[in-house]
Amino acid sequence: MSFTSPSVEALVEQLMRLPTIGRKTAQRLAAYILKMPREEVEALAQALLAVKDRVRHCAICFNVTDEVVCTICRSPRRDHTTICVVEEPSDVLALERTGEYRGVYHVLGGVISPLDGIGPDDLRIRELVERVAPASNDPERAAHYPDGQIPRIQEVILALNPNVEGDTTAYYLAQLLKPLGVRVTRIARGLPIGGDLEYADEATLSRALEGRLAL
Amino acid sequence: MSFTSPSVEALVEQLMRLPTIGRKTAQRLAAYILKMPREEVEALAQALLAVKDRVRHCAICFNVTDEVVCTICRSPRRDHTTICVVEEPSDVLALERTGEYRGVYHVLGGVISPLDGIGPDDLRIRELVERVAPASNDPERAAHYPDGQIPRIQEVILALNPNVEGDTTAYYLAQLLKPLGVRVTRIARGLPIGGDLEYADEATLSRALEGRLAL
Repeated sequence: MSFTSPSVEALVEQLMRLPTIGRKTAQRLAAYILKMPREEVEALAQALLAVKDRVRHCAICFNVTDEVVCTICRSPRRDHTTICVVEEPSDVLALERTGEYRGVYHVLGGVISPLDGIGPDDLRIRELVERVAPASNDPERAAHYPDGQIPRIQEVILALNPNVEGDTTAYYLAQLLKPLGVRVTRIARGLPIGGDLEYADEATLSRALEGRLAL
Repeated sequence: MSFTSPSVEALVEQLMRLPTIGRKTAQRLAAYILKMPREEVEALAQALLAVKDRVRHCAICFNVTDEVVCTICRSPRRDHTTICVVEEPSDVLALERTGEYRGVYHVLGGVISPLDGIGPDDLRIRELVERVAPASNDPERAAHYPDGQIPRIQEVILALNPNVEGDTTAYYLAQLLKPLGVRVTRIARGLPIGGDLEYADEATLSRALEGRLAL
């Protein structure tokens, strides 16, 4: 069943292209948008286009930014010698939410996935290696940092998703980075907080055992 | 926590104005939109504006349409002597989904709600009365109908939501319409199909008893 207006139906179809939005939700959203003042709908449409027009990748970490360098890479209060490698900007968001991490990031833009035809060259791996082992003390590059100096990286923390592609990519990166004399670590895998041992899957439980710590 | 791009944050804020979309969903949508090709984002933005620019209310039933008269009111296969009164275009959608109803609709645009400052004059009640008891055989008006004639209404079915405002509006409409010599009915209230008598609330159960039918 569809609305009696092709324009409303077209909007429903467009909204359904977004993740987690099925036909019913799209219809509910369209019905709401129909009642919204035109200025508000315009603001939403403009915000959508602005994201495409203004957002670019940080020259250092490839996170999303409206400037040349993102707010995290520009901050003098962050530890610029520790890099946390993630797949996507939303992973940065998740880690920032913890309020625990004081280092900087490197957004790969995905993971190695031969099935999807994504190899190392499709990700920002070359750029990560360049951050860990800078080829030259390029003054233009140095100017991007809060203290005007290219930092010497001490540790690279791999925070990729715990699945086959994430594991493959982590292994590949570790092989590439370790010879450069940097500490390479990986975030722990184990039981989620509030999780129940009885209901944990075997893989998670094995990892939790493997990663046990002395008390 | 927020994305390191003000443009992305602005989009998140805009998306959060829509119903059922909280911050986390808005962030997930924004992350997806960031990766969408520009043409697709443009199509979405244009669909949003098109709804505001092109959608208007059907001259007969006030449902949404891109034309003067909606597809239901234009259809010669519908029974134009039976009007089902609903609050919103999304209610038309819900009723059409059943595939049971062959009559036409009248979209009130809301219900009487003194607390929200909505009185009978804020709804399309005058227009409903005009449909049931046409003041004159206006040829311009008659031309809107598939057979070029203003139909003589036999029955008005009130399909308003089962709550205080819906009940008040239904009562008000019944008082207004009955003297015009039209049959006024109201859709049944009772146990939802698949519902459990044991878990039904008292109001629903009372209504179900009240509306019992002979077998």
